[in-house]
Amino acid sequence: MSLTNATPLEVAQAARLGSRKLAVLSTSERNAALTAIHAALAAGKHSVLAANAQDLEAANKAAAGGTLSSSLVKRLDLGKAGKYEDMLQGILDVRDLDDPINKTTAKTLLDDDLVLSRVTCPIGVLLIIFEARPEVIANISALAIKSGNAAILKGGRESSGSFAAIAGIISKALETTAVPSGCLQLVQTHDAIADLLKQDTYIDLCIPRGGNKLVRYVKDTTTIPVLGHADGICSTYLCADYPADKATKIIFDAKTSYPAGCNSLEQLLVEESALNSTLPTVAEALLRKGVSLRCDPSSLSALKGKLDPRSAALVQEAGPEDFDTEFLDLILAIKTVANVEDAIEHINAHSSHHTDAILSTSESTAKTFLAAVDSSSVYWNTSTRMADGQRYGFGTEVGISTNKIHSRGPVGLEGLTIYKWVIIGDAHVSADYGAGGKQWKHQHLSVGEEESVARNAEEREVLRKFRASRGQ
Amino acid sequence: MSLTNATPLEVAQAARLGSRKLAVLSTSERNAALTAIHAALAAGKHSVLAANAQDLEAANKAAAGGTLSSSLVKRLDLGKAGKYEDMLQGILDVRDLDDPINKTTAKTLLDDDLVLSRVTCPIGVLLIIFEARPEVIANISALAIKSGNAAILKGGRESSGSFAAIAGIISKALETTAVPSGCLQLVQTHDAIADLLKQDTYIDLCIPRGGNKLVRYVKDTTTIPVLGHADGICSTYLCADYPADKATKIIFDAKTSYPAGCNSLEQLLVEESALNSTLPTVAEALLRKGVSLRCDPSSLSALKGKLDPRSAALVQEAGPEDFDTEFLDLILAIKTVANVEDAIEHINAHSSHHTDAILSTSESTAKTFLAAVDSSSVYWNTSTRMADGQRYGFGTEVGISTNKIHSRGPVGLEGLTIYKWVIIGDAHVSADYGAGGKQWKHQHLSVGEEESVARNAEEREVLRKFRASRGQ
Repeated sequence: MSLTNATPLEVAQAARLGSRKLAVLSTSERNAALTAIHAALAAGKHSVLAANAQDLEAANKAAAGGTLSSSLVKRLDLGKAGKYEDMLQGILDVRDLDDPINKTTAKTLLDDDLVLSRVTCPIGVLLIIFEARPEVIANISALAIKSGNAAILKGGRESSGSFAAIAGIISKALETTAVPSGCLQLVQTHDAIADLLKQDTYIDLCIPRGGNKLVRYVKDTTTIPVLGHADGICSTYLCADYPADKATKIIFDAKTSYPAGCNSLEQLLVEESALNSTLPTVAEALLRKGVSLRCDPSSLSALKGKLDPRSAALVQEAGPEDFDTEFLDLILAIKTVANVEDAIEHINAHSSHHTDAILSTSESTAKTFLAAVDSSSVYWNTSTRMADGQRYGFGTEVGISTNKIHSRGPVGLEGLTIYKWVIIGDAHVSADYGAGGKQWKHQHLSVGEEESVARNAEEREVLRKFRASRGQ
Repeated sequence: MSLTNATPLEVAQAARLGSRKLAVLSTSERNAALTAIHAALAAGKHSVLAANAQDLEAANKAAAGGTLSSSLVKRLDLGKAGKYEDMLQGILDVRDLDDPINKTTAKTLLDDDLVLSRVTCPIGVLLIIFEARPEVIANISALAIKSGNAAILKGGRESSGSFAAIAGIISKALETTAVPSGCLQLVQTHDAIADLLKQDTYIDLCIPRGGNKLVRYVKDTTTIPVLGHADGICSTYLCADYPADKATKIIFDAKTSYPAGCNSLEQLLVEESALNSTLPTVAEALLRKGVSLRCDPSSLSALKGKLDPRSAALVQEAGPEDFDTEFLDLILAIKTVANVEDAIEHINAHSSHHTDAILSTSESTAKTFLAAVDSSSVYWNTSTRMADGQRYGFGTEVGISTNKIHSRGPVGLEGLTIYKWVIIGDAHVSADYGAGGKQWKHQHLSVGEEESVARNAEEREVLRKFRASRGQ
């Protein structure tokens, strides 16, 4: 990791060079680097928190002056109880996951002694651009090294002190390991982004982690493939048959447990016949928590007169834009739909394809919904807030993807790998096959039986002799 | 399939709409559509070949006038012995492959009654832009329908008659099936490309099949993800320990069996100690076939005086540009390298990351090469010409990808799918987990045991009662 004045081109080239070496390190060499990073960050907690306190002080001033949002200040704070320890634990969690690379995931016998394998491997060089949240540097460094990828990390201005402190510690820790220092590159100058986004010869994948504006800027600017999501407009479809107490529990969690999260609920679709039964109960709970409800005409009239008058101001008429908005706040748009088909159509047209849920006791209705909704995560009877790499068991995540290619949903180690096709033969040539020639066998081999295929003349000879000795 | 005057926006919207319906059709409904297309194209062979003959006549005139390359004319010809039958067989091959969608590929128990599954699904709408080769329309229609994707096909000017004939037949065949007609859209006006490449709201993936110029234009023009390859600069590293007869057989196949193919050999790297032993034998065979050898100084002096004097003119000095060129012709660049590390470095710097091979009897040298070469296909002791969807057992392919994300190498059915994450719960909410709360189980379930997890209250009740009856 370097905190130099290198140009974006030099940074990208150094990362590429490092990536070539990192890609062929053993599992234990990569794991040892994570152990070293964990130990160094545990030992350096005081200095990181001191730097973070300075960042926080500057940010609080900026927030008081109105030039920074208070939610960003919140995300900056590494001193909150348990946050630093969670960051440390995340590194060990990632270390202890299965190695995602050098795994044979498919194997085909093309012909005798001619075997095709699909083997997972790192993507190469990742460019990760993020806003506040200094702990992301540790999470992403861990995911990158474990998956054999070099990473260029560009942090936000507000966390620059914390960032430099963490980076310095990681850099020193890596010196004692087999991971080349070029594999993690820290960039802090804001001007560098535009030039980094041009390095498509050296950078394989760009992951922007931040607000809609950042993500759209990156997508529109670069020819490097981009993984991530611009919006998190998540919906839940509430069926009339679903019990009001469970519906309330789920919708309350989805809307209020972390309104600024991309997996928070922004739209509630209510089956017409649930308007007078379940909806008022759900609405009461949300209103008590201070959630504004932006209602379509049918849901508005269903709620009118049924609620505590003190909440009346929070029940508002929805405009059409409310069904295309990521509120990131205690606001929920409510729309009435006739049935599951209407719900699916609305979601496929208005959702950001992040996470959408159905609450229903009917398996057939739920299955229709799960199959037809075109989103990266689709849930039955649970909260959209489940969309998270740690919750999915990935240790941590580099982001949540709404892409339709490569990785979708929370992206952990597996999402940071690709594969190569390996063929091992014995002077087999293509011209021997086809019309009038040899036939392909195309026999799928069990991946577990990796060692059952003789891979060279010597091994084949061993097999031949053994079989001969058995009279075969 | 429509041959209308619809605008590119309308074409893209219609495909998106069709894709929603196609995505939820059953395996047998999609397979039945392929059976119908196969039967209709078999019955319509005469009319297709008549249209193709007209295209061919116009193309031959253009080639004689110098406005069209003769290799393009060759690719246009559907009348060559066996070509039409191969196209028909390809449709049945794809139909008979396993259904790539709705497959659960991973399953995790997050908590009791809370199960996360990863389920494969179609990508959505594909835009495939191709040049000559009218049979591609049948291959790609088959791959698209089987994988549940809608496809917009934009064919080349030269094959417009064949294209219209095949499209008309497929269109009529689909009318009798459950596949909505909007799922296959045929576009022939050349002007449409630029506008189609803007439809990133409706099109999920663009696959250009054609020359370097087309692919670069597409990559530089669109914000839709692009799958494919611009160049096929394939290398083979010949080690001194590898027998000359096998080396000759492999290199001869790789260079001469189809020089215009993207998987043909363009660069031979020779281990220094093989210059005087193996190289002359290999060179003789290539020269007899008329291959020009562009040699670096060491290989040039090694070959001088050892070859049939009649071939002398074919042995030339290489310029630096020869090691970055896709010749697509009977030309081979030859470079001397000290060892496998040098070969890897040269390939990672100069190859187009398509397909590269090593010829060696040493397992450890070969494994070093296979692990470190960063290409979509890497081979040991076989010809680079093996890189092909049919040869890999995919039935056919939509193209060969040198991308570092999503699909790499020949892209068949699996490369046209993505997945969604499905969670089924019973009113589990996120706020219950974490510090001081419930713990995640993150227990990996066997994908085969899909039915072993109770999915709703009723099923859980059945299990509960059963266990109670056993005193558990």
